[in-house]
Amino acid sequence: MIIDCHGHYTTAPPQHDAWRKSQLAEFGEGRPAPEYPAISDDEIRESIEQNQLRLLRERGADMTIFSPRASAMAHHEGDERTSIEWARACNNLIARVVGLFPETFIGVCQLPQSPGAPLTASVAELERCVSELGFVGCNLNPDPSGGRWTSPPLTDKYWYPIFEKMTELDVPAMVHVSSSCNPNFHATGAHYINADTTAFMQFIQGDLFADFPDLRLVIPHGGGAVPYHWGRYRGLADMLHKPPLTEHVMGNVFFDTCVYHQPGIDLLLQVISTDNILFGSEMVGAVRGIDPQTGHYFDDTKRYVDAAPISDSERGKVYSANTRRVYPRLDKALRARGL
Amino acid sequence: MIIDCHGHYTTAPPQHDAWRKSQLAEFGEGRPAPEYPAISDDEIRESIEQNQLRLLRERGADMTIFSPRASAMAHHEGDERTSIEWARACNNLIARVVGLFPETFIGVCQLPQSPGAPLTASVAELERCVSELGFVGCNLNPDPSGGRWTSPPLTDKYWYPIFEKMTELDVPAMVHVSSSCNPNFHATGAHYINADTTAFMQFIQGDLFADFPDLRLVIPHGGGAVPYHWGRYRGLADMLHKPPLTEHVMGNVFFDTCVYHQPGIDLLLQVISTDNILFGSEMVGAVRGIDPQTGHYFDDTKRYVDAAPISDSERGKVYSANTRRVYPRLDKALRARGL
Repeated sequence: MIIDCHGHYTTAPPQHDAWRKSQLAEFGEGRPAPEYPAISDDEIRESIEQNQLRLLRERGADMTIFSPRASAMAHHEGDERTSIEWARACNNLIARVVGLFPETFIGVCQLPQSPGAPLTASVAELERCVSELGFVGCNLNPDPSGGRWTSPPLTDKYWYPIFEKMTELDVPAMVHVSSSCNPNFHATGAHYINADTTAFMQFIQGDLFADFPDLRLVIPHGGGAVPYHWGRYRGLADMLHKPPLTEHVMGNVFFDTCVYHQPGIDLLLQVISTDNILFGSEMVGAVRGIDPQTGHYFDDTKRYVDAAPISDSERGKVYSANTRRVYPRLDKALRARGL
Repeated sequence: MIIDCHGHYTTAPPQHDAWRKSQLAEFGEGRPAPEYPAISDDEIRESIEQNQLRLLRERGADMTIFSPRASAMAHHEGDERTSIEWARACNNLIARVVGLFPETFIGVCQLPQSPGAPLTASVAELERCVSELGFVGCNLNPDPSGGRWTSPPLTDKYWYPIFEKMTELDVPAMVHVSSSCNPNFHATGAHYINADTTAFMQFIQGDLFADFPDLRLVIPHGGGAVPYHWGRYRGLADMLHKPPLTEHVMGNVFFDTCVYHQPGIDLLLQVISTDNILFGSEMVGAVRGIDPQTGHYFDDTKRYVDAAPISDSERGKVYSANTRRVYPRLDKALRARGL
C-alpha cells in the first residue's frame, strides 16, 4: 500500500474560492461574510476524478492524506473571525471529498490561526475535525503573518495549547506555511522551504520534545534545506550543547519526499533514517510541469523513491508503515477495513 | 592552488568588538562614537596565525578571500551613520590583515547598509575599498533589517546603484545576511540558509541579469536549499515562463562549498555545473566542532571536495579557476605575482 501524506485540495470548485474573495471583501467593508455557496457532489467528484484521483492511479499510489490548499489558508488576511469561518468551510469541503472517496482520501485540517490571536479557536477546530469529521491530523502554520514572521518560535509556550490537544487526540501536524505577503519570499520557492528549515532549527534550539515526548511533527518539502545541510545541523546541535539530533529531534520529527529530482531524494534517503521519511508528493501542487530531463512530472515523487538505492523493506516504511505510525487514526481506519 | 572564497575575520582582537559595543551604547544615548582603539600589528598577527592561517596550513589551502565577520555586520543596529563608521573600521582591519599576510589573504568588504537608507554610502565604501585598499569584492546583505525582511527583493531598482558600481569596478558580491533580531531565525542555522534560498528564487522571478549581464553574485552555504531542491527550481522557472536556469541565472550566480558533510557536497557537485562552484569553508565560522562520524572538523570542506567523484580538472575549477574568473581583481593580483 502506498500512502501520499501530502496532498492539498488545489482543484476545489470555483465557488469555494469566490466565497473566500467575497468574505474578505465584506470584511474590508466591516460586514459579515456572505452565505457559503451551494457546491454539488458532482462538482466535487469531477474536481477530484480529473485531477488527484487520476494522477494517483496513473502514478500508482493508493491514497492521500488530504488537506485544504495550503497557499489559500492565508492566515494573514482578514482577522480571527474570518480565519475561523474559512477554516470551517475548507475543512467541511475536505470532509465531503473524503465522504465521496473514502477509500482514497482521509482528512487533515486547516487551523483558524490569526496573527497575534491565541490558539483557542485552532484547538476547537482541531477537536471538531478529528472527533466529528474523522480527520487524522492538522496543518500548523508557524508564520500566520505570511512572511513577516511575527509569531514566537514553535518552541514557545504560545503554541502549547495546540500541542496539548494534538497529544490528547494522538494526531500529528504538518508544519506548513501559507502564501507570503512579503515580496522577498516567493511562496513555493522560498517561503515554504525557509519555513521548513526554520522550524527544524527551532526544534534544535529548544527542548519541545522534553515537554511533549509523544508529539509528532511532519516537516514537508523534504525537510527544507535540512538534509542537504545535515552536517551543519549536527554540528550546530553540538555547539548548542544539545544531544545528538537522533535523540534530540528525530524521535518526533519526520520529513516527506516532496523533493522533485532523483539526486535530492537519493540524498534524503541516504542521510535521514528511513524511519523518519514519509512518502509525499504535494500533488496537485507547487510544481506542475514535466521535467524535460526525464519526460516525467517533476512532482511524480514515486518514480524517485522507486529508483532510489534502498531495500524493499525500507521502501515499505516510507510508503506506508511510517505514515501509519505517525497518523495512528489513519492506521486504525485502515485496520477497520482489513488493511 | 587552492583558494577559499569564504572566510570571515571572526577572531579579531577584542578591542574591535568592544569599540562596536561602545559605539552602539553611545548611539543609544544620542552621542557620537568613541575613538577607535589602538590595535597593534602583533595582536592582529597572533589572531590570524593561531586561527585562520594555522587551519589553512593544516588543511592544505593556499589563500582566503577574507571579509569582516558576517554576523557582526548587524546592519539593523544603530543607523546609517553607525553602519558607515562600523564598515570602515571593519574594512580597515581587513586591509591590515592583508597587509601583514599579503600572500594568504585578499580583502572583501562589508557595506554600510542600513534599513531603508539608500545605497549611496555602500557605493562609496565599495569604491574606497577597491580603489584604495585593493579589495576584490563585497558582501551584500539582502536583509539589512536582520530577519524582518523589510527591504525590496534584490531584483528591485533599489539595489541598482550597488550593482552598477560592482559592474564598473568589475567585482562580485557574496549575498550574505548578518545576525537575526527575529527570534524565529537562528543566524547560522536558519537566517543564513533562508537568505541564500530566498535570493536565488528572487533571481528566478526577476530579470536582473538582463539589466546587468556582467554582474556576478556568489550565494554562500552551498546555495542554501537550492541544489537539494534543484528539480523544484527548474520546475518553478518553467512555471514562471522563464528560460532554463542555466541561461536565466547560472551565467551570473555561483555557489560556494560551505556544506558540512560528504553527501551534501556530492549532491552539489552532481547537480550544479562545476563551472558555478567556488571552494569555500566559512572558516573559522558557523560550525566549529569535530564531526564524531568522521573525526574531522565539520567545516574542513576540502576533505569533502577531495573525496568527491569529480575529475581533477573539475576540482581545479572549484579550487581556483572559477574563483579567479569570478574575482578578476584577485586573478590580476595573482598574475602580478607570477601565479
